[in-house]
Amino acid sequence: MSYTAPIKDMLFVMKDLAGLDDVAALPGFEDATSETAQAVLDEAAKLCGEVLAPLNVEGDRNPSSWKDGVVSASPGFKDAFRQFAEGGWQGVQHPTEYEGQGLPKLIGTPCVEMLNASNLSFALCPLLTDGAIEALLTAGTEEQKQRYVPKLISGEWTGTMNLTEPQAGSDLALVRTRAEPQGDGTYRVFGTKIFITWGEHDMADNIVHLVLARLLDAPEGVKGISLFIVPKFMIDDDGTLGARNDVHCVSIEHKLGIKASPTAVLQFGDHGGAIGYLVGEENRGLEYMFIMMNAARFAVGMQGIGIADRAYQKAVAYAKERVQSRPVDGTAKQPVTIIHHPDVRRMLASMRALTEGARALAYVAAAHCDIAHRHADEAVRTEHQAIYEYLVPVVKGWSTEMSIDVASLGVQVHGGMGFIEETGAAQFYRDARILTIYEGTTAIQANDLIGRKTLRDGGAIAKKLLADVAQTVEALAAHQGAAFASMREQLANGHRALGAAVDYVLANAKSDPNAVFAGSVPYLKLAGVVLCGWQMARALLAAEANEASDPSFYSAKMATARFYAEHVLPQAGAFEASIVSAKGGEGVLALAEDQF
Amino acid sequence: MSYTAPIKDMLFVMKDLAGLDDVAALPGFEDATSETAQAVLDEAAKLCGEVLAPLNVEGDRNPSSWKDGVVSASPGFKDAFRQFAEGGWQGVQHPTEYEGQGLPKLIGTPCVEMLNASNLSFALCPLLTDGAIEALLTAGTEEQKQRYVPKLISGEWTGTMNLTEPQAGSDLALVRTRAEPQGDGTYRVFGTKIFITWGEHDMADNIVHLVLARLLDAPEGVKGISLFIVPKFMIDDDGTLGARNDVHCVSIEHKLGIKASPTAVLQFGDHGGAIGYLVGEENRGLEYMFIMMNAARFAVGMQGIGIADRAYQKAVAYAKERVQSRPVDGTAKQPVTIIHHPDVRRMLASMRALTEGARALAYVAAAHCDIAHRHADEAVRTEHQAIYEYLVPVVKGWSTEMSIDVASLGVQVHGGMGFIEETGAAQFYRDARILTIYEGTTAIQANDLIGRKTLRDGGAIAKKLLADVAQTVEALAAHQGAAFASMREQLANGHRALGAAVDYVLANAKSDPNAVFAGSVPYLKLAGVVLCGWQMARALLAAEANEASDPSFYSAKMATARFYAEHVLPQAGAFEASIVSAKGGEGVLALAEDQF
Repeated sequence: MSYTAPIKDMLFVMKDLAGLDDVAALPGFEDATSETAQAVLDEAAKLCGEVLAPLNVEGDRNPSSWKDGVVSASPGFKDAFRQFAEGGWQGVQHPTEYEGQGLPKLIGTPCVEMLNASNLSFALCPLLTDGAIEALLTAGTEEQKQRYVPKLISGEWTGTMNLTEPQAGSDLALVRTRAEPQGDGTYRVFGTKIFITWGEHDMADNIVHLVLARLLDAPEGVKGISLFIVPKFMIDDDGTLGARNDVHCVSIEHKLGIKASPTAVLQFGDHGGAIGYLVGEENRGLEYMFIMMNAARFAVGMQGIGIADRAYQKAVAYAKERVQSRPVDGTAKQPVTIIHHPDVRRMLASMRALTEGARALAYVAAAHCDIAHRHADEAVRTEHQAIYEYLVPVVKGWSTEMSIDVASLGVQVHGGMGFIEETGAAQFYRDARILTIYEGTTAIQANDLIGRKTLRDGGAIAKKLLADVAQTVEALAAHQGAAFASMREQLANGHRALGAAVDYVLANAKSDPNAVFAGSVPYLKLAGVVLCGWQMARALLAAEANEASDPSFYSAKMATARFYAEHVLPQAGAFEASIVSAKGGEGVLALAEDQF
Repeated sequence: MSYTAPIKDMLFVMKDLAGLDDVAALPGFEDATSETAQAVLDEAAKLCGEVLAPLNVEGDRNPSSWKDGVVSASPGFKDAFRQFAEGGWQGVQHPTEYEGQGLPKLIGTPCVEMLNASNLSFALCPLLTDGAIEALLTAGTEEQKQRYVPKLISGEWTGTMNLTEPQAGSDLALVRTRAEPQGDGTYRVFGTKIFITWGEHDMADNIVHLVLARLLDAPEGVKGISLFIVPKFMIDDDGTLGARNDVHCVSIEHKLGIKASPTAVLQFGDHGGAIGYLVGEENRGLEYMFIMMNAARFAVGMQGIGIADRAYQKAVAYAKERVQSRPVDGTAKQPVTIIHHPDVRRMLASMRALTEGARALAYVAAAHCDIAHRHADEAVRTEHQAIYEYLVPVVKGWSTEMSIDVASLGVQVHGGMGFIEETGAAQFYRDARILTIYEGTTAIQANDLIGRKTLRDGGAIAKKLLADVAQTVEALAAHQGAAFASMREQLANGHRALGAAVDYVLANAKSDPNAVFAGSVPYLKLAGVVLCGWQMARALLAAEANEASDPSFYSAKMATARFYAEHVLPQAGAFEASIVSAKGGEGVLALAEDQF
């Protein structure tokens, strides 16, 4: 099997780090026991390992294709999507009243990871549908929810997010697509949207496009954007599909990776106007879009973790099989499998440590999201929501940045074979490259982390997290051995570095925004390195406590935590220097535009 | 023009850092004045910018193709190769007695950089031919030199290096290709070679394969490998081409990048045996191959620098053109070109600083090579040869590792457009990915740096370089300003870190080889970061001295040096921790094979 879901690690993180029991104690989540979690993960692993993973290479070799406005998914994808839909997988985290399974995000998240690990291109379709569902649940009328959400959850229809235009990528203030009211409560939408993932395809009966557009009299900039539903096929009152709407796919992109996933250019209104339905209030589109973007950003972080794990699994398999060179310590006279060479071991351990650290932080974030939604006490909900929101850009930015490095290491472990497309390692390197770009580049995440997540509350949440990290540093002191010693030293250092960066951001953002934002990505990466390291430290503590119950698994976790401490956490100092000592801006901005 | 050679920076590095005047003072290099250098670089820039650079995308879209054993180069390549050959570019660094131009490596190196920046796939053909020429000049008979070298230099023929076999990648001890003496001084060669770059093509009349093979009675392992010339077409005594030799291309690879460059599987001797001629003595093939590998490794380092510069130039052009978002400091109410955003500036400055640092170190290494070949005093030659040999794995390993990061940043600067193949940024990301693998992976370079280059002389050369770095740190102290202050602090820190790593390697390699080799790649990267930083420090000093003569150029150099100090050099501490504090091996090797 080309992908085996790491269920043991997933359940360990869910239970011992993310507090599955606490989540299961929340109102409405009573069924979310560890038994349920195990059962759901086992089933998801089956679908992903047996059906979706084998299609991953197939989709790369036979990308989705466009002809006369019709997009055909890669061979096998339509059938796989049917199996996915029939298994109820689109609805894992969505409410039971709209035919979802109503499970916590903490259980949905490992399923999302598996889906992406097995087939990134495929997984994008449900990812976007999730976003559409979130937006409708947040801002739609009850009638809209009833009309669209159950069909999206059943997989009869899929959803898209239509933000980008040729002149409006990161900057949605530049959106030009316009919507004209028809007097009957509907609108006609005109414009061009690009980079629309799964914007057209043949895997489902209908596609529900959620589209950002501007009313004629709307204010300029982001405060004049509204959100519209534009279905591919019109829907009769009894729910049957009617006429084709005036939205057409005029081409799909030729991309570096995720080739099975069609990236569409959609033309709205070339034949009289695409019928659209306003979601929520006029001019509040961006706000609603941010809700679905937060969900989508977290999911893209999971894409990074998924593909990193897949690349790791492939590299391990190759390293255990490929025989080359005698060991450097002279313990064998014959060539050995390359996993015996220290540098190959270092590469595999890096891949593993980065992936496990990012997984732990992401699942912990998911649990905060669950508490934020379901806890009985509003103050608790508010605090956990704020923690979740701080963590989203870190999960998105850090997990995707590290996934490119991990996929690249995966190629390197394969040596020359890694560069040959048939081997398959190169696909992960190509596929992963989009992850730091879409749903907001790493710089956009970093700006969000600074602006909305650190400055807005005066650093309150950042400092709360730092205090939690400090507690873990304390807890490590009570334990013996090299792993604990390294982790304590390096996590303490990381804590100090992150604290210094937060203080620097707070102190200088107003007076010297360029300097602070020049250090934004280093700040995000520093937060990623330290907060994932914090989770690895918590994992180390939990693993020691549990060790007797499964010595091989827990000793591996302890070794991985030590590796993280010794080989990943030391980067914290370099990021700190980039932000604080360097007073970012000056050095970064010293070159004038014409000197580049 | 899609590539503009950075001639000003090249000449600055050649003159002010690498000592072109000293090289021109060496016997036989009297013509290598700065005027000659300028003239040669100007001509090379013309060919590369006008002829080769435009073909780069073309070759990616229309890769070289195989049909019935015949390989056709990408459209336009054959004609471009003719122009390259007629311009005498293959012979820049080769001796005049074989029709070369006899110029120093210091002048040849920027030409190699330009060639690779303009078209990596194309440049590989001359790169391999250079290797074949070096091997023949080193180990061939006078008759062999006369027969092959002038034709290789004229571009009528090209050369290849045949090392790798399916079971023998990094580990040449496993080579199985065999050579049987025919009693007439010739041999018949049988076997399969893979990954043979430009191993078959239609750009030249003949191909001179240099092939590692084993005589029947040869000792096992690397001490039983001999080197043979196997021409594609037999050569009559008057130099005309005769019968086709029994070496055939049975397929070419489908690769992630460098698609215009055919990567051949060559079958030797399927029809009775390929006629081969022994080069040098029996069983000394690996030794000769190492000579050409050292040249080729340095050249691959230049490939990294070339592609990094190309990716940088493309990203700068895009950043100056793409309008998106208002500036964070509120200095404009309208969206601006993205080069005004601090994170884009940071990415561009990173790309630039990494590229300039690597260029400076490589050119300095080239000058050491020239002195090693031509200085009148043998002791001087020996020392400079040792310095050059220490620097080769650093130039190869570091320049190529950084090139992947730089190409990836180039994609990132382009945002979503970077992921679309038509944009062209993705090609650099794909092409660069081979560079850390072929001609010895980064781990192989790192093993070489530790084994042959650091341990063998008890750290003498490493410490000599450290002493030179310390002198530069001293020199910085006499200057004022933020750039000098940052550089002095960070270079001093880097010097300390590298010194600690060298001491660690020297102290532990015998007693704990696994621990030391687990830190081998971090040691190589540390050496790269610090030694390139050292060159940027020297550049800073030179730039201040020269500033009045060209304020824009030299102030840009000073700003770039400062950026390097503040944003690249701080990584030294993290690498040091990975090697020294972590005692590498223990943490890396703590996971047992079955725990991965």
